[in-house]
Amino acid sequence: MAKDNHIKNEAITRREDDFAQWYTDVCRKAELMDYSSVRGFIIYRPYGYAIWEEIQNYLNKKFKETGHQNVYMPTVIPESLLQKEKDHVAGFAPECLVATHGGGTKLEDPLIIRPTSETLFCEHYAKIISSYRDLPKLYNQWCSVVRWEKTTRPFLRGAEFLWQEGHTMHENEEEARTETLKMLEIYADLGRDLLAIPFTTGRKTDKEKFAGALETYAIEALMPDGKALQSGTTHYFGTGFAEVFNIRFQGRDGKVHHPHQTSWGVSTRLLGAIIMVHGDDNGLSLPPYVAPIQAVIIPIAQRKPEVIPAARSLETLLKNAEIRVKIDESDKTPGWKFSEYEMKGVPLRIEIGPRDIEKGVVTIVIRHDGRKLTVKKEEFVATVKMLIKQVQQEMYEKAHAFLLDHITDVTNMEEFNEVMAKGGYARAMWCGNQACEDKIKDLTTATARVLPFNQMPIGDTCLVCGQPAKKVVLFAKAY
Amino acid sequence: MAKDNHIKNEAITRREDDFAQWYTDVCRKAELMDYSSVRGFIIYRPYGYAIWEEIQNYLNKKFKETGHQNVYMPTVIPESLLQKEKDHVAGFAPECLVATHGGGTKLEDPLIIRPTSETLFCEHYAKIISSYRDLPKLYNQWCSVVRWEKTTRPFLRGAEFLWQEGHTMHENEEEARTETLKMLEIYADLGRDLLAIPFTTGRKTDKEKFAGALETYAIEALMPDGKALQSGTTHYFGTGFAEVFNIRFQGRDGKVHHPHQTSWGVSTRLLGAIIMVHGDDNGLSLPPYVAPIQAVIIPIAQRKPEVIPAARSLETLLKNAEIRVKIDESDKTPGWKFSEYEMKGVPLRIEIGPRDIEKGVVTIVIRHDGRKLTVKKEEFVATVKMLIKQVQQEMYEKAHAFLLDHITDVTNMEEFNEVMAKGGYARAMWCGNQACEDKIKDLTTATARVLPFNQMPIGDTCLVCGQPAKKVVLFAKAY
Repeated sequence: MAKDNHIKNEAITRREDDFAQWYTDVCRKAELMDYSSVRGFIIYRPYGYAIWEEIQNYLNKKFKETGHQNVYMPTVIPESLLQKEKDHVAGFAPECLVATHGGGTKLEDPLIIRPTSETLFCEHYAKIISSYRDLPKLYNQWCSVVRWEKTTRPFLRGAEFLWQEGHTMHENEEEARTETLKMLEIYADLGRDLLAIPFTTGRKTDKEKFAGALETYAIEALMPDGKALQSGTTHYFGTGFAEVFNIRFQGRDGKVHHPHQTSWGVSTRLLGAIIMVHGDDNGLSLPPYVAPIQAVIIPIAQRKPEVIPAARSLETLLKNAEIRVKIDESDKTPGWKFSEYEMKGVPLRIEIGPRDIEKGVVTIVIRHDGRKLTVKKEEFVATVKMLIKQVQQEMYEKAHAFLLDHITDVTNMEEFNEVMAKGGYARAMWCGNQACEDKIKDLTTATARVLPFNQMPIGDTCLVCGQPAKKVVLFAKAY
Repeated sequence: MAKDNHIKNEAITRREDDFAQWYTDVCRKAELMDYSSVRGFIIYRPYGYAIWEEIQNYLNKKFKETGHQNVYMPTVIPESLLQKEKDHVAGFAPECLVATHGGGTKLEDPLIIRPTSETLFCEHYAKIISSYRDLPKLYNQWCSVVRWEKTTRPFLRGAEFLWQEGHTMHENEEEARTETLKMLEIYADLGRDLLAIPFTTGRKTDKEKFAGALETYAIEALMPDGKALQSGTTHYFGTGFAEVFNIRFQGRDGKVHHPHQTSWGVSTRLLGAIIMVHGDDNGLSLPPYVAPIQAVIIPIAQRKPEVIPAARSLETLLKNAEIRVKIDESDKTPGWKFSEYEMKGVPLRIEIGPRDIEKGVVTIVIRHDGRKLTVKKEEFVATVKMLIKQVQQEMYEKAHAFLLDHITDVTNMEEFNEVMAKGGYARAMWCGNQACEDKIKDLTTATARVLPFNQMPIGDTCLVCGQPAKKVVLFAKAY
């Protein structure tokens, strides 16, 4: 029965015809975003922003449970301040939006609209840290950042995007390293528990790490087109920035030390991951836990006097059970509404019409697999609750199966190319030299996504040069 | 007993010595904010930001209950877009921060860092509104805005501040006017229910209204130095922006109409109001409902083995009762801690030491009036809950009494000057001509704060020119 209950939405390009166009269609037609008149600056429409708010709620709770505090730093960075850390400025300078005039006067020191806030946090930390008693500092900021990108795509790469950036300072290396990995785990949990996305985690190679960091870790998601999407990162900085910014504290030993630093962030890019991982030719398909609307109630033959009251009583039942529910009583046809909420990816559709009322039943249609259930009214709320849990799990398992099906061990470039042609990750041994990493990128456009935490060798020699191998790497083409 | 339990904090300037310096001292020493290296751009430190988060939580709930949706618009406005509405651009142009370079290239159309977002919302609304079925649009945005102010003060006037800006579109004038007043009422409720501040409400004169609005309404708070602080505004625009931005819809009558527009906002300026209305010479004093920490537990003689476990068990009791509690087990002295949390304005201080434990009691000290209570352990949680409610109400009533004591009816300029010398509002009759309003400002620096909703006349003639009076006005000096 499955697919029969889907109504074809002709407004959306089919994925196999043009995946990139399908993606843009979904972004716009599900009303997640709109373009503004400035290239790369998008409008986060209510439905898209509500998904981001669910992510914020989840993470704010986790951040606070782990002792983090929210702060807000200036939206601008003096050019001279950004230039203090050389690797950092080299990474960001080409993408800066620069303000040169304020109140009609030319500024002496131009102001960069923040692309990231390490330098601002460091300047502040230098003022408020003086003793080991002041540590750790565990600050987080929710804000937007601006990076003047040449090519932009909604949510995936924008001139402006929304994110959180954590910036922490610690007494010693061990504590900072623990923090770097703890936050990576919170991001992986976010994927599993809220987004129904299995993230691949691991460390970045030096070539791929963040400008100014000693080590970068990442969560990566695999898209249906076989390309990886870096979805969040955590960084360990050592004391590099602290030295440049003169952040010092008197330690328990009475001596002066530099604190060890981390930063970490996820952004509205996660919306891009959700769209691609779960969507289909009918549009968006949202995991229930992150869906702004978990169930939509559609009255059938709503002009009959018994229908609207029955639909509203279902709405009340679900509201009381704290399920995010919407009823659509507009004068559109049921068919139009079916198609609309499928496109918007609402996980459960509740249909109630005269025949259902007569029989004392409710019809439920599940977005992600098209299943249709008829349940007794007495079992309605319990069934919806159960389905929300079940659908969340099924969507995760489906994405996980796809991921496992797209990790292939390779030992030479021929096998590597086959995997790249098919899409997905090639797991391979690597000598550790950037020359080989560069060569793979030149030949295939693929990059080292992560050095997975499981470093069990699958061979002895580097897949590029044949020299002794040092690391297991997951390679893929990436967004 | 009252004041004896306060420990003098010598680090804070006394209010009667220098009110402005007292304010700055509290902002910094209570760790609400810090300065950044760019003039007027402040850092919202965890304790200050947490107060803002309480305000956000309160308003987000009210906004959603009244059908509003959150969105996010670009952080930049093309200069050409800002210039579309002439009154609007005239109001904001002198304060603009302008970006002229992106990615190393000069921009053809410079970008203004948003000082307010009417133009962005209008541009978007023009694209998504075409029928009465699309109305109302009830959008709100949480963000920061930048206004290049010459003189700045923490929270009160900044080059950057945090706020929410609601922008709504309606089918007709009546609905838009209702919205304008409804949001003003939500702001007044926020004052009464969360901030313990009695706001004076009313309409602004044409001279004082928002750039581009037909009518502006405001909430005004009275500060202890007798000056008013405009704390939030709501605006009715009519169809002015809609005409300029070509926002049109097909109405129920089949004809094309322009929608009627509103906007409304409150900002982190509210933190300035809280600080001044409730603070005293010992520092900040927070109403319990908006306090990030409602009760602080201070162990006395904490090295004695029974003290810390007893203090932690009190903490658990309060946490379970969903009271925001903090325990300070640091190695500072109790006296230092008393002074610190007084300065930070924590409403309730819980002291527990060996003698309390022996007697089965807990000591509670109330921040705002210095009262000290000894309560039986069995009554501890119930007493704390009761006190939170009671203190909130007492703080509101105290502020309300101060306000009522500082509204004086005047009929001529002599009486007016007496009120301005003492501080507070002068309620007076006005002919409605801006010349008289200007004259008052020139002579006294006072401005018309609001035309109160209660327009019961208190005389027949304008206090300036003696001509027939048309309006009741509340005048005051203002921040």
